[in-house]
Amino acid sequence: MATIRDVAKLAGVSVATVSRVLNQNGYVNKETEKRVKQAIEQLNYKPNEVARTLFKKTSRTIGLIVPDISNPFFPELVRAVEDVMNIYDYTVILCNSDEKGEKEKEYIDILKQRYVDGIILTTNQLTIGEVSKIDVPVVVLDRPLDHSLPSVIANNYEGARMATRHLYDIGCRRIAHIQGPLHVVNAVERFNGYRDEMKELGLWDEQLVFLGDYNLKLAKEVTLHALQTLSIDGIFAGNDVMAVGALKAAQQLDLDVPNDVAIIGYDNIPLSEMTTPELSTVSQPIYQMGAMAARLLVKKIEGQSIEQSQHKLPVQLIQRKSTMRE
Amino acid sequence: MATIRDVAKLAGVSVATVSRVLNQNGYVNKETEKRVKQAIEQLNYKPNEVARTLFKKTSRTIGLIVPDISNPFFPELVRAVEDVMNIYDYTVILCNSDEKGEKEKEYIDILKQRYVDGIILTTNQLTIGEVSKIDVPVVVLDRPLDHSLPSVIANNYEGARMATRHLYDIGCRRIAHIQGPLHVVNAVERFNGYRDEMKELGLWDEQLVFLGDYNLKLAKEVTLHALQTLSIDGIFAGNDVMAVGALKAAQQLDLDVPNDVAIIGYDNIPLSEMTTPELSTVSQPIYQMGAMAARLLVKKIEGQSIEQSQHKLPVQLIQRKSTMRE
Repeated sequence: MATIRDVAKLAGVSVATVSRVLNQNGYVNKETEKRVKQAIEQLNYKPNEVARTLFKKTSRTIGLIVPDISNPFFPELVRAVEDVMNIYDYTVILCNSDEKGEKEKEYIDILKQRYVDGIILTTNQLTIGEVSKIDVPVVVLDRPLDHSLPSVIANNYEGARMATRHLYDIGCRRIAHIQGPLHVVNAVERFNGYRDEMKELGLWDEQLVFLGDYNLKLAKEVTLHALQTLSIDGIFAGNDVMAVGALKAAQQLDLDVPNDVAIIGYDNIPLSEMTTPELSTVSQPIYQMGAMAARLLVKKIEGQSIEQSQHKLPVQLIQRKSTMRE
Repeated sequence: MATIRDVAKLAGVSVATVSRVLNQNGYVNKETEKRVKQAIEQLNYKPNEVARTLFKKTSRTIGLIVPDISNPFFPELVRAVEDVMNIYDYTVILCNSDEKGEKEKEYIDILKQRYVDGIILTTNQLTIGEVSKIDVPVVVLDRPLDHSLPSVIANNYEGARMATRHLYDIGCRRIAHIQGPLHVVNAVERFNGYRDEMKELGLWDEQLVFLGDYNLKLAKEVTLHALQTLSIDGIFAGNDVMAVGALKAAQQLDLDVPNDVAIIGYDNIPLSEMTTPELSTVSQPIYQMGAMAARLLVKKIEGQSIEQSQHKLPVQLIQRKSTMRE
């Protein structure tokens, strides 16, 4: 493999000159730069990335901390981050934190030891004080933390109002909500949207709210209980995974979806089109969110000015068979 | 932040001695080692990982190349690799190759420039010659390449025979197969298992084989076509995603699953339990496969002896409602 010395020799310049060209610092005249670049190309010289890292304290690597890649919301998000980072020549270290603050802190330490150039966080176990101390560029994705940090989120509150209103519009009057984990901000925002819409419709009843924890099995259990003990004609589940649980509960009780009970989820993950009946849902632009966070992070790393650092993306109601009444 | 000099000063030794303790090479007496370790702990000293990388040509990072993390088979596999690597204090760089040989080669170059300690490949676009040249420890996961490389795969051929035989056992006689991509080894192995079982049963008919390319929509289309033009009473889909496509086609034609047409998939991804009826399938131990590949790679990196380097894990038939006839 060619070394920096080979390049210098072929170009007829010093090693220091080649280094200046590579790192784009210090003066090098145009003609010399051209000769060095030709030599690099001719020899297929690849600079030692680790040495460059040490010199520049950069690794062309970023860290991406997600709660759990096997939660079906995250693969598409991770894919988008990796696609965009690949375009800008960064690699992505993936970390699963399981929503545990300790594990997040540990990963952040490890990532800093690897000199990552930036971190994308899809978490909210850390306080804003802890995140501010991270000391490399950070972008927050999916879960807002604080206005001082660049972030990309979708409009959870509005989406939840739309879903609730949609159930009302097709005739539902006893609309239950299956809620995500109470410590996850987007779950709370969706609950708030549901509650405010129900209040505005004059239908608010706190007995209609059940904790499903973004978990299919738990959502199925609480729905079975709810359908057997209360008269319910509509269910707004805080995510699609829980909506599948609700659907399974209704089917186990031989109820017709949507005519006995209509169901709508949230996220529009591929799963929502795979059930029978297919699930109505609120579509988050998942890929777009990941791609936008990645581009924001590149801009921050490269010191470019960021015109707008808080992005709240619109969501969209998708009506499918689970809310199409005859 | 504490430096190596601070540690040396506190322990009353030279920087070179601290370095020998850190890198565990050269002689250091027990008492001195103890003092150095106490100083490291007391100062909460974190060795500069990048400098260590340069010195030792190691980064405590591995590369994991998958076709596409948003394919529902891979999140659990990736999660398993990351969990095990985290235990051994390695981080994981995730790469999506889209089954493109060029992209795989490009990623391997990038990973080598980052001095990864090893690579896990879940791909077969590269030839064994190309993989042998990689020059860092490699473990092949899910897709066998060659007996000279450590690998973890599941027994695709046997699994396919079991699935086909199961459809026969519940009374199916015209059993179609929806096949995965022809260039993917596990898809070919599953086809071979189906074909050999059908031959043994005296039911082989090449007209009953359709290309679904591991794609839900294509699988749905070919199933619609097959159900409308041929008399078919059973379908073995080469993976669960295609089985969902087949199920949707049957439901669109108002056929009863399993009584008009029984359907079985392959993989046992979470999705297979989310449909109605739930899908029978052949269960691959996905998490176990990822974890085993990760442990094999750690052993290779650390130069430990590997007793067995070829692992073919058993699979299991899971019967659910899509093949439970009345």
